[in-house]
Parts: sequence; C-alpha cells; structure tokens
Amino acid sequence: MMSTAEGKLVVVSGFSGVGKGTVIASLLETHPEYALSVSATTRDPREYEIDGVHYHFISKDRFEQMIREDDLLEYASYLNNYYGTPKTFVTDNIAQGRDVLLEIEIQGARKVKAACPDALMLFVMPPSAQVLRERLVGRGSEKPEDVDARLRRAAREAEGIEEYDYILINDDIEACAERMHSLIRAYHQKTSFHLDFIQEVRNDLINL
Amino acid sequence: MMSTAEGKLVVVSGFSGVGKGTVIASLLETHPEYALSVSATTRDPREYEIDGVHYHFISKDRFEQMIREDDLLEYASYLNNYYGTPKTFVTDNIAQGRDVLLEIEIQGARKVKAACPDALMLFVMPPSAQVLRERLVGRGSEKPEDVDARLRRAAREAEGIEEYDYILINDDIEACAERMHSLIRAYHQKTSFHLDFIQEVRNDLINL
Repeated sequence: MMSTAEGKLVVVSGFSGVGKGTVIASLLETHPEYALSVSATTRDPREYEIDGVHYHFISKDRFEQMIREDDLLEYASYLNNYYGTPKTFVTDNIAQGRDVLLEIEIQGARKVKAACPDALMLFVMPPSAQVLRERLVGRGSEKPEDVDARLRRAAREAEGIEEYDYILINDDIEACAERMHSLIRAYHQKTSFHLDFIQEVRNDLINL
Repeated sequence: MMSTAEGKLVVVSGFSGVGKGTVIASLLETHPEYALSVSATTRDPREYEIDGVHYHFISKDRFEQMIREDDLLEYASYLNNYYGTPKTFVTDNIAQGRDVLLEIEIQGARKVKAACPDALMLFVMPPSAQVLRERLVGRGSEKPEDVDARLRRAAREAEGIEEYDYILINDDIEACAERMHSLIRAYHQKTSFHLDFIQEVRNDLINL
C-alpha cells in the first residue's frame, strides 16, 4: 500500500559529456527493475551504437509518420535530425508499475513535464565546468570545435536547470547512480501520490 | 559542494501511537549526525520520561517568559499545558550544518513551516487504522477512554496530512528510519538549495 500502483516517469537531463548515460547504465545494472526509454532518431548511428539500445534509428519518413500518428511523447530536431520519445513504451511500463527512465535534453524535458506533470525531473551536473571540459576532451570522440560547440550549448542549457526538481553531481558513477535510485524511491513517498490511502485510513479512524 | 552549508529542519509528525518517537530514536542510533530538538513543556513527566531527553520540563512561569522573549520557534497548548520548541537549539545546529529533527504535532508543524519554509515535512502513518488502535491498546500506558480520545484526535489530525511533503509508513522501525534518512538526504539535493553552485558552473562554462 506504500507503493503506488503506477510507475513514475523519471526525466534525466544533464550537460553533454557529464556522463548521464553511464550513470543510468550503472543504475540499470544494479537495479534492473527500472525500464529505460530508448529514443528514436533519424541521425546516423555512431560506430559503437546499437539500434534499439542506444537509439531506435529510423528513417525520416517513419519519424514523420510517428509525428502524424501522435506516437511520440515529445520530439525535437537538433543539427537537422529528429529526436523523439516513443509514447507506448513509456505509458505501458508506467501502467504496469515500472519506473521509466528517460534521458533527454532540456527542451524535450520541458515538453515531457508539460505532458506528464508527475514526472520526476533530475539534472546531472559535473563537479565543475572544468571537469566537464576535461571529460569532453578526454572522450576523444569529439573534434575540438565540437567540444567548444557542446560547451556553448551546455551554457545555454544551464539556463533551465532551475526547472528540475533535483540536481545530481556525477563525481563518482556508482555513487551518483545510487543517489539517483534514492531520489526515485523517495519520490514515490510523496504525499500527493497516496491520497487514496490517506483517505482510507481517515475513514477507518472515524469508523473504528 | 553538493552538500549545502546549512542544515535542514525536518519536521516529523504522525498519529499518536504510530511510533514516530521510536523511529526517530532508531534513526539517531544509526545516524548520530542528526540533532534532535527537545520540546519544552509544562506538563508533568511520565514515569519513564527524563528531563532534557523526552522534554525540557519547565514551569508555567518560565514557559511564559520564553514566549515573551521570543525564544520559541512555535508553541501551543494542549490539555491545559504548554508545549513549544526552543528556538536557539534549532537555529544554532542548522547554522553549523547539522540537520535538526523536530517531532511535533500537526498544529505546531504548520507554524514551523510558516516560520521556516525550507523545512522538510514528514508524516508517519500506520499501515492501517486498525494497526494504530492495536498499538495504542497494546502500549498499556493509556486508559481505554484515552485510546478513544487519541483515535478521535488522530482522525482530526488526519485532515492536515496533505500539507506534508512525504508520508512514511511505519511497518518496521528500522526500515522506516532508513527511509526517513533517505528522504532527508534526497531533500538536500533539491535544485533550489544549489542555486549558487549552478550559477558558478554557468559562469565558468561561459568563461572557459
């Protein structure tokens, strides 16, 4: 009765290069009860990316069909490609009582929050801006001009952090993943998710 | 930099007999880093109660002096006795970065929240109304008519549960104490408590 029947949608954003994908992967390894929403995109896969794991890589025609048929929780375009969140996976899992993790950029996060006001909004931050730059450079998959573009983008995205419920500092992957888990568990205990139970106890107290 | 400089005030309420005092004692045993606010009262100590531990037992004159000198965070009267929260202990510990636990009734909790909007509001519930009655009867320290009076009081107090941030179900003392700890740790990660850090990262991103 403490657990709510429905799962919760957990929106995870954070600067490019902050390691939010790695934190989520660590969380899923220790807590496989979470469902991970895989975005659809029309961009080309990077060398290491697997279709259906990192993204659903689909054609522009297919993506635009999903838009028309309202099959996306949100979508956006970035660098001439579409990115979006297939709706059915999220709603099915939540209905089955599973929490769904959704890694998404800040603009998409806003749309998700508007569509799902009960979504928990988490923002992963680096311990400092300098650490973020070092991680982007160290990753090696980015050209120097791309690193600069990503940092400029991060500075713009930083304008929206206050819209998130909690920040998580990725100083250590496993520790950050465990803090994420704690935040999600805590979220389930919000009073507003237990109004039926409260009313039940209230009625029983009067009738005892 | 993740930890805020200031401690947080944690208000813990719950029905009479729900075991919130026992849960808090369990939390303090495993996490002695918390400070526990001890209320002042003018009522007589029960047999097992120790001055300065369960309450500060003080005279009516002394209590009214504290009222006049604004030394109380809140106070109220109940069954012809005063109950109140000495202010200095709370503010000193918070300033030193310690979280302060404050076990208090719902009316006092409202006053504390009005005075300290950043207070975390927790409400401890029994697994069911029936369990609450059984605990009150089983405690043996209450006369049957007092049990009835407490249950009626609980029903009235239940009207205010929605004003609390989270509910905690006391199904198991240690587990409930750990959930309380998790909720408090999670609370520290609220975005609104880290605006200075966010601004610092934002500025550094622009200047990198």
